[in-house]
Amino acid sequence: MATRYEELAEALSLRIQAGQLRPGEKLPSVRQACRNTHLSPSTVFQAYYLLESRGLIEARPRSGYYVCHRTPTAVRPPSAADVSTATTEVAVSELIFDVLRSTRDADVVPLGSAFPSPALFPLDKLARSGARAMRHLAPTALTAELTAGNERLRSALRARYTRHGITLNADEPLITNGAMEALNLCLQAVTRPGDVVAVESPTFYAALQALERLHLRAVEVPTDPQQGMDPDGLAEVIARHRPAACWIMPSFQNPLGALMPTSRRQAIVQRLAAEGIPVIEDDVYAELFHGATRPHPLKAFDRDGLVLHCSSFSKCLAPGYRIGWAAAGRYATTVMRLKMMGSLGAPVPSQLALADYLEQGGLDSHLRRLRRQLAEQVGRVRRWVLAHFPPGTSVSDPQGGYFLWVELPEGIDTLRLHQQALEKGISLAPGPLFSADHRFRHALRLNAGHPGDDRVTHAIKTLAALIRAEPRGTA
Amino acid sequence: MATRYEELAEALSLRIQAGQLRPGEKLPSVRQACRNTHLSPSTVFQAYYLLESRGLIEARPRSGYYVCHRTPTAVRPPSAADVSTATTEVAVSELIFDVLRSTRDADVVPLGSAFPSPALFPLDKLARSGARAMRHLAPTALTAELTAGNERLRSALRARYTRHGITLNADEPLITNGAMEALNLCLQAVTRPGDVVAVESPTFYAALQALERLHLRAVEVPTDPQQGMDPDGLAEVIARHRPAACWIMPSFQNPLGALMPTSRRQAIVQRLAAEGIPVIEDDVYAELFHGATRPHPLKAFDRDGLVLHCSSFSKCLAPGYRIGWAAAGRYATTVMRLKMMGSLGAPVPSQLALADYLEQGGLDSHLRRLRRQLAEQVGRVRRWVLAHFPPGTSVSDPQGGYFLWVELPEGIDTLRLHQQALEKGISLAPGPLFSADHRFRHALRLNAGHPGDDRVTHAIKTLAALIRAEPRGTA
Repeated sequence: MATRYEELAEALSLRIQAGQLRPGEKLPSVRQACRNTHLSPSTVFQAYYLLESRGLIEARPRSGYYVCHRTPTAVRPPSAADVSTATTEVAVSELIFDVLRSTRDADVVPLGSAFPSPALFPLDKLARSGARAMRHLAPTALTAELTAGNERLRSALRARYTRHGITLNADEPLITNGAMEALNLCLQAVTRPGDVVAVESPTFYAALQALERLHLRAVEVPTDPQQGMDPDGLAEVIARHRPAACWIMPSFQNPLGALMPTSRRQAIVQRLAAEGIPVIEDDVYAELFHGATRPHPLKAFDRDGLVLHCSSFSKCLAPGYRIGWAAAGRYATTVMRLKMMGSLGAPVPSQLALADYLEQGGLDSHLRRLRRQLAEQVGRVRRWVLAHFPPGTSVSDPQGGYFLWVELPEGIDTLRLHQQALEKGISLAPGPLFSADHRFRHALRLNAGHPGDDRVTHAIKTLAALIRAEPRGTA
Repeated sequence: MATRYEELAEALSLRIQAGQLRPGEKLPSVRQACRNTHLSPSTVFQAYYLLESRGLIEARPRSGYYVCHRTPTAVRPPSAADVSTATTEVAVSELIFDVLRSTRDADVVPLGSAFPSPALFPLDKLARSGARAMRHLAPTALTAELTAGNERLRSALRARYTRHGITLNADEPLITNGAMEALNLCLQAVTRPGDVVAVESPTFYAALQALERLHLRAVEVPTDPQQGMDPDGLAEVIARHRPAACWIMPSFQNPLGALMPTSRRQAIVQRLAAEGIPVIEDDVYAELFHGATRPHPLKAFDRDGLVLHCSSFSKCLAPGYRIGWAAAGRYATTVMRLKMMGSLGAPVPSQLALADYLEQGGLDSHLRRLRRQLAEQVGRVRRWVLAHFPPGTSVSDPQGGYFLWVELPEGIDTLRLHQQALEKGISLAPGPLFSADHRFRHALRLNAGHPGDDRVTHAIKTLAALIRAEPRGTA
């Protein structure tokens, strides 16, 4: 549930995005806004602070709040020429492993990491929940609920989906070792080695790794930095390649941060259903919306059991517990069997800690706090990047999650930049990680999920200096 | 470390197996034995009780202890005709899932289960360890040690291997979601879809499932109920099919309970090394020896990094925690990458609970107690089976673990028996589960890992009655 100030901020944010409030335009004064909205001054102030923290509006001393000039910095949508039309045998791992190994060093500023700071999570409460649940454990519970998962946890998850109008079947969700396992199992359930799978472009490198692991071929679909996978691009890929499955991250896509509009979600689910093509939905960032409400997953529009919906607690509540889930529709039995064959079951201590935590009822207030923190951090890092990086840089404007996608002036090689940054103790995720054929050489993904302290500001300035010193070869 | 009475029992057990003490022969009186061995009467008594509990010797009132008559009941070694020489595309899952689903019901006597009773494990101590470790957790520890695993746990494991003369490399062991994931990852690291893999016959059905999942073909190697995989059979399979890998469970093989002798281990490792064929070693039961010492894993004889050694805590310490490991020799990097791509990392709460438990130092005394309990239960269930099942039944004589392999008179169909038993509230594991082409129709595996109470005795008698009532068709 959004608070009143969040609702007001969301309404204003939508008007800014729709161009109803234009860059440079003055917002109503707090007194006016109170009259217009029948809200208290402190509520209006909080809404304005929130929009300011996200970089949407700015305060001008003794004048008031103005809509920021930001259009020139938005990431441009892809043109058809950007996206390869061929299918590609996937072999990205060598590069990904090189980069990821470097982000694990505690002394390195983790701008290339995929995880938000673990300090943002209620770790003490989870530990207490875990201790309580394991102390009162019936021994038989340790093996009785392999493979489907702990029924208390499954019920709690079903109840959360019900709140979003989604009724899960009795065999959903299957509890997995994180979303990564859920995604791998779902992908395996609907493909055979050699099949083609449609993915976003750019796409999360773990999707490419999953394809590589299963000996699948990728075909990339143009993906808009704001609205996600392009339905026309998808239609063309279907006509040309007849993919066995389509992997989509509709909410706060990694790396772009795109939030697919509801109408596009419906259109894509219907289109794929008409073709009988299953959808792997990676929904791990959906709870991290910066706006007022949780976006509906693709699963909400699925009438045919073709959406294999995957998510986890790793990014929003309990990193390292390795608890995710799959609600795999008509493939639920197949996915459960693959789970049983591959790793038998999910860890009971982690499952029970989460079940107890959910039953205690603290999740929603934790999530509200987390969303606010991430929105502020994303806004802050975005402003630093725009302030320090050279002209010609564009930065995504995500409405959720904690990633920023930065496109540098053409000719800058972010693989080389990554090496130079590492020597200075900074990691980043170079663009070529996010494409089966290593495109996006001048782009990079930054993690804004770590509290914005001097270390991060300094790292951004250091990166900016490296970029400015970079020779601009031809990409 | 074995106690003195266990050492004495082991020495006598070896003499019985070697035929130096023959069936019906009287053992030395306790007084004589004390003189011969310089042990106390109570130590000798304990040794005799242990051998009696395993069904190796029997007490005759006012006379003394005698070696049991058991030769006629031993499971006969396979002849060449028993084992198919063709490779088989694996599709066992439907049958396995049907059977396993039925063993999950708490009201069913779990003779078909793969798990020992969770009541045999130090669950309270583990819960306390988990609570302690998670309370003092540094937040960064939640993501820093993905993918390799928690370093405290890895060090404790390395130290245990060192005690058995095995020095693991710095990249070993990789912590996994149970042995099942370790085995799947190792198998994937050394194969491509369509490859042939040599397995034991009968073999653990999870090996067949792993092959099926990776689109591999199985070729079965004759496996002796006492000594495990046959080296000559293996040589023939290598010559004929050139397998990409060989999957072996050298210690207390599931389902036979076979314990491969050291000389055979050396010969098989050398033979496979000479051919450059990697070995997947499933070592999950090795800690459950009933004798005096832990058998050396195949890994101990590996000079070429070709043994991918897998094990876990699920069967000997912490079921449901889902912590296993792989020490994959020259494939360690490949396996770690597959782990990262497939499920990222193992659960931190489970890893830390186990690390803390191991550091507290209680594992060895727990294992000594567990081994004694399992040895007694296996001996007891074995005696009940021999007492109640019809003539023509033979039963394996495992030196470790908790499985009994029972061969019924030819013509009895254990798939049908399984259905009938289920109606009476008893599960069992029918022989056809353990073969890619569903042989062993007249055999079954019984789980003796649940404390031998009236419920189990009654179940054995019920099974015996069902078998006696069975029409004997042609298999």
